[in-house]
Amino acid sequence: MMTMATKTSMPSPETRPAIELSQNDRVAVIAGSGRLPVNVAAGLKAAGHSPFVVITGGERAEADEFAIYDHATIELEHMADLIPLLKRERITHVVLAGGIGRRPRLTKLKPSRYMLTKMLPRLASALGKGDNALLSTLVGFIEEVGPKVVGAHEVVPDLLAIEGAITKAKPKTADHRDLKAAFGAAKAIGALDIGQAVVAIGGRVVAVEGVEGTDGLLARTAALRSHPRLSGKKRGVIVKCAKPGQELRADLPAIGPQTVRAAYDAGLAGIGVEAGHSLILDYETVRTSADALGLFVIGLPGDKA
Amino acid sequence: MMTMATKTSMPSPETRPAIELSQNDRVAVIAGSGRLPVNVAAGLKAAGHSPFVVITGGERAEADEFAIYDHATIELEHMADLIPLLKRERITHVVLAGGIGRRPRLTKLKPSRYMLTKMLPRLASALGKGDNALLSTLVGFIEEVGPKVVGAHEVVPDLLAIEGAITKAKPKTADHRDLKAAFGAAKAIGALDIGQAVVAIGGRVVAVEGVEGTDGLLARTAALRSHPRLSGKKRGVIVKCAKPGQELRADLPAIGPQTVRAAYDAGLAGIGVEAGHSLILDYETVRTSADALGLFVIGLPGDKA
Repeated sequence: MMTMATKTSMPSPETRPAIELSQNDRVAVIAGSGRLPVNVAAGLKAAGHSPFVVITGGERAEADEFAIYDHATIELEHMADLIPLLKRERITHVVLAGGIGRRPRLTKLKPSRYMLTKMLPRLASALGKGDNALLSTLVGFIEEVGPKVVGAHEVVPDLLAIEGAITKAKPKTADHRDLKAAFGAAKAIGALDIGQAVVAIGGRVVAVEGVEGTDGLLARTAALRSHPRLSGKKRGVIVKCAKPGQELRADLPAIGPQTVRAAYDAGLAGIGVEAGHSLILDYETVRTSADALGLFVIGLPGDKA
Repeated sequence: MMTMATKTSMPSPETRPAIELSQNDRVAVIAGSGRLPVNVAAGLKAAGHSPFVVITGGERAEADEFAIYDHATIELEHMADLIPLLKRERITHVVLAGGIGRRPRLTKLKPSRYMLTKMLPRLASALGKGDNALLSTLVGFIEEVGPKVVGAHEVVPDLLAIEGAITKAKPKTADHRDLKAAFGAAKAIGALDIGQAVVAIGGRVVAVEGVEGTDGLLARTAALRSHPRLSGKKRGVIVKCAKPGQELRADLPAIGPQTVRAAYDAGLAGIGVEAGHSLILDYETVRTSADALGLFVIGLPGDKA
């Protein structure tokens, strides 16, 4: 899944101050799937702002979650319509939030002159290069017409994971070994734009996220428990990391209540995220459900390299 | 799966000459699961030697395959018995061949004084460090008592993959992009001792081998074909690579007829292996079944770094 999470620039996001939004500013939340866009819209509203939500058609069944905000729905194939919409609504900042589970179906594209001449050539080139290239291209389109593309955590700073355990359970010594092994591997696969998450059990990496995403990885881990190589091995962790270097700006990792439940179902002892570079969605639900299930959730010191 | 494949030392195996076995030499094949030990024993016999096969109990149902050779069966938990057996049979060279799908069950260990004082402490230390550490430890035990541990390809050089396609089908341009992406990722995960195989489709890595092994990876790839992110994407490749650097000596990657069938079932266009660093088992069956299914099998230039 492509996570349209945030745009951050180097240096790392924890050192970048949150944006002070004025009364004239208006934030559009481009809502893909998952809990992130819901969290961003709620966070903006809680801070006294009125977000405009652009629902990506086909990605969300539960559009009613956004009924209390100004909103519009655009099909993925008609995303060129986003540009005039942003102008019309006098949007100053755009947050790309949530997953886009599929690629645009080229046969369903409604081609406009703008799209054919300006967008398609660049999109076609980006499509083959992975999520980061695709997102950078989208960011470029939006900023060319005016609005600034910002990270979810820049307008709702509370989303960012901080260092340390947020749960009653803390990692044991063996868990720290797993966290270290998984963190290193997650950084390595992130550098290759393969995935963000890795599972380690018994001090070793046993599963690596590919195109199936974190939920798929955890479902797979649950099935792997019966593998002879893991017989007698208990606990284990999943770690999600930001990709090293510039790729961070396009794809910030996130966990939520679903991750906690799936980690529990996979027999894992806890979840590690990179502090300052990861989002925790539905924070209170994550904390209380992890406590109820006996899992730890910990923010790990980020890669300082 | 732990593949007890070979021992090779730097420089890379293609530059290391095959071993000239004399009439006084006797090769023991420690047979784990899979086709490699069958290929090694048959290759030795074809060259006029009389291998001694040590069947690892619990790993092979089809022990009859070795009935034509001198052989013995040792349970994984009684592997300490291997040492006196090697002496008794006057073994000069040992080939570790095939997979060990499980770890020894400590409750089933039949402890001898030798095992308790010499082997267990080192094995316990190696168990947590991954396949390579475990194999290096085993290699150390054997060589201390006399026999030289050698790679399967050192006594049966025909097993080694050579550069170029061995099939009628050759990679197309898009396949070469997939081969390149998968090769780079396979090297990276190999460096971390995570796995050896990677699947790339549409120019991108979509799945990475973990503890489930290559068969599990390909079964997963078949399931991933219906993933929205892969909709409309055809072909794709699996690449198996040796791990960079010294790890090569402990775990040489191999493909066989099962890999060809599973790659076909996963909708892939072909298989890449690292020439000079990978084994092709049941070569003629691999070639003819790949030709029958329209897949390519290609030896890729190895990592010269």
